Amino acid sequence: MNTTANKKSKTDGLTQELSRLIGKENVLHILEDRICYSYDGSKQKYLPDVVVRPQSTQHVSTILQFAHEHEIPAYPRGAGSGLTGGAVPLRGGIVLDFTQMNRIVEIIPEDLTATVEPGVVTQTLQSEVAKHKLFYPPDPASAPFSTIGGNVAECSGGITGLKYGVTRDYILSLEVVLADGSIIHTGRKTLKSVTGYDLTRLFVGSEGTLGVFTQITVKLLPLPEKIETLLVFFATPQDAVKSASQIIFNNLLPRALEFIDKSSITCIKGYNQEIQIPAEVNALLLIDIDGRESSVKTEASLIEKIVLENRALKVIPAKSHKERDALWEVRRAISPALYNIAPYKINEDICVPRSRILEILDRIADIHKRYPSLKVASFGHIGDGNIHVNVMYDKGEQQKALAEKMIEEILRNTVEVGGTISGEHGIGNVKSAFLSLEIPPGELKIMKDIKQLLDPKGILNPGKMFR
Amino acid sequence: MNTTANKKSKTDGLTQELSRLIGKENVLHILEDRICYSYDGSKQKYLPDVVVRPQSTQHVSTILQFAHEHEIPAYPRGAGSGLTGGAVPLRGGIVLDFTQMNRIVEIIPEDLTATVEPGVVTQTLQSEVAKHKLFYPPDPASAPFSTIGGNVAECSGGITGLKYGVTRDYILSLEVVLADGSIIHTGRKTLKSVTGYDLTRLFVGSEGTLGVFTQITVKLLPLPEKIETLLVFFATPQDAVKSASQIIFNNLLPRALEFIDKSSITCIKGYNQEIQIPAEVNALLLIDIDGRESSVKTEASLIEKIVLENRALKVIPAKSHKERDALWEVRRAISPALYNIAPYKINEDICVPRSRILEILDRIADIHKRYPSLKVASFGHIGDGNIHVNVMYDKGEQQKALAEKMIEEILRNTVEVGGTISGEHGIGNVKSAFLSLEIPPGELKIMKDIKQLLDPKGILNPGKMFR
Repeated sequence: MNTTANKKSKTDGLTQELSRLIGKENVLHILEDRICYSYDGSKQKYLPDVVVRPQSTQHVSTILQFAHEHEIPAYPRGAGSGLTGGAVPLRGGIVLDFTQMNRIVEIIPEDLTATVEPGVVTQTLQSEVAKHKLFYPPDPASAPFSTIGGNVAECSGGITGLKYGVTRDYILSLEVVLADGSIIHTGRKTLKSVTGYDLTRLFVGSEGTLGVFTQITVKLLPLPEKIETLLVFFATPQDAVKSASQIIFNNLLPRALEFIDKSSITCIKGYNQEIQIPAEVNALLLIDIDGRESSVKTEASLIEKIVLENRALKVIPAKSHKERDALWEVRRAISPALYNIAPYKINEDICVPRSRILEILDRIADIHKRYPSLKVASFGHIGDGNIHVNVMYDKGEQQKALAEKMIEEILRNTVEVGGTISGEHGIGNVKSAFLSLEIPPGELKIMKDIKQLLDPKGILNPGKMFR
Repeated sequence: MNTTANKKSKTDGLTQELSRLIGKENVLHILEDRICYSYDGSKQKYLPDVVVRPQSTQHVSTILQFAHEHEIPAYPRGAGSGLTGGAVPLRGGIVLDFTQMNRIVEIIPEDLTATVEPGVVTQTLQSEVAKHKLFYPPDPASAPFSTIGGNVAECSGGITGLKYGVTRDYILSLEVVLADGSIIHTGRKTLKSVTGYDLTRLFVGSEGTLGVFTQITVKLLPLPEKIETLLVFFATPQDAVKSASQIIFNNLLPRALEFIDKSSITCIKGYNQEIQIPAEVNALLLIDIDGRESSVKTEASLIEKIVLENRALKVIPAKSHKERDALWEVRRAISPALYNIAPYKINEDICVPRSRILEILDRIADIHKRYPSLKVASFGHIGDGNIHVNVMYDKGEQQKALAEKMIEEILRNTVEVGGTISGEHGIGNVKSAFLSLEIPPGELKIMKDIKQLLDPKGILNPGKMFR
């Protein structure tokens, strides 16, 4: 009772102070509102004391100056679609909801750049620049709802990573508010700049722990003239993985090269009846090829030849935009469909050198034998070695503990084969216990020293990345 | 006399100690040898006390541990081809010559990666991976002699930046020896990784001031099937700049898009008689288009159409590999040919948003009016807004001071139009006085704090980047 009263008076006090600083219309304090900001894509729940909705860089600066002075945790939040807990207010305090700062400041086609506020939804950026026949390549599965600010904080990847790289490769310049409220600008809005240290990329992927973005300038490319999509059926995952390798070995770089395993296929069948997948199909590749019309044609037929040589059962090309969407629906359906297998899942995000993919899949199969009560489904960006391994489990603390133990084994094996424990989802608090599996003490010390340097009071997204 | 004796005994002492630590065959101490390591591409001269030629990571670690303990400046050096003084031993001490550590450790075509030692010459890396039909895109003009270690330290760019980005975009993982001799590994040899802060890119472009690279893993691409080259004549620089903009505006992304101004053309004519450039030509564009054979053909004809619409006088396509080389000889001849105008030059490296190129060229022309005794020639990577402005001057302190004053005005104006004072050459000691023109105090403080964190005794490349 006492704690609740304390909590309430904390909320009241913060609400009063913050309303005075940035206007009460930008402060949410009632319980129903705060509950909406208590969880994110990682499905954890921690109630913030207060939520602020900054409208400007100056607002963000004012909020952080206040938080810094009073040592109150500050949790920046985009759409809250992150999968590693990046946006959950672990220690209460203030959530900064950036969805109001969602202006596209400028698109300069001649410079191939766009400057946006962090709350712009990634797909909105993609479609706005597409009107100028321009292309923002990073394409996380969350693009329809995740924000560019969150993408930069997590260094999001997505299906286009093999050919086009990830978010960090497209960020030219950032406006950042530091922990103490000071405003800095990193990089330049030029395609090249090597003046001083690369602070821009220090902030990209820093998961809101080093500073908060208030403006982001991205590099754009010309929009590819044409995209062609192929869905390929295989009898074994080995054939699919070998095909993917052979495609790259033959100097082809598809826009997307996605792998879907048997468990995932089984789920899709239950979820989406439109796509007919015969019983003998145990793995799929979903391939996008983009570029000039003529070269897309050439490359599509080369790829068809390669996969057939590698024992593909069938190649289904999309004949229209609508058919393309239908094929991609197969891929998009996996994540929700996995809940058909079991009510709970841990979605992992390992990435290995492509030459080690079969090895890691074999190792995961071996590990799985020791956890017969759990279900495993793997799919993802095989082109860049980034596999989403999903461990599904039933209700109960024992099942959950087993799943976590299995995940730890998978991560340990990933690091052993030269891989990384996070290809594109980040660490957050969900994986912070595993960070030291991959990052040795010396490197970890440098990271923590940098954190200490930029956020000495530890108010920015505390509890994330490091334990 | 006393100083010389001190100097000599310093060399003797260091030679003895370092010989004991890494073998006398890896230590150079006689004056003639040390003179060879006293200068670099910036044409400054500072004599090191001793030169070491490490053969292994362990050697580098031992050397730095020793330098750290005794607070002796340590200057890493690749080919010494840098233009901002990155490799000159400003404060004496130890030069670490990395040319012996030039092994290509592995090329893994399936992973699209290569791991090399820092002393590998960039062109060697390019041609070795080309044997596997792979492509390492960063292509500084110095590629035939500069080393990959130097390229990473400076974040080198080159002619392919518009389409393919710069060195930082291709570095996956680094082995780094820190100031105190400890060995760390940053990043992973995977195409994606977001585990912890991006230390890799903190080291890329840090100009040897934060750590010394001993192994570098780079990302590769499939080798483009075909390259086509066009040389285009224009009556005015405005027509050339507008053409370049229109090419990009029309969704074309050439592999190279180089601009050469009238002063540079005049020099080339004196230097290379093979290429016939008519008198009415006041600007050139040199364009490379790469990709699949079919798309290169399509794009070359689109580009030809665009430049002719923008009043190009003539388009000369290369009909063979030999003709392509001849056309590129025009571009390569500029830098040496500029010495025909005046015996001294300062080669600047500004980069502006492409939409501001005409403005900055106009501003430079205006500034030039106030320095009639100096000559100015501009050329460079107009595709990414990166222009090498060369200020040429005659012998004498007064001329030199004038040239430096003019350069400062150019840099100031560059920053005013949103540009950067260094697109790809770095800061070194040559531009450190100008760093604060672009980097505000808050950002500069973060950089210096990071330097202090990683090199508290300031032994790594002291005197570079910061004054």
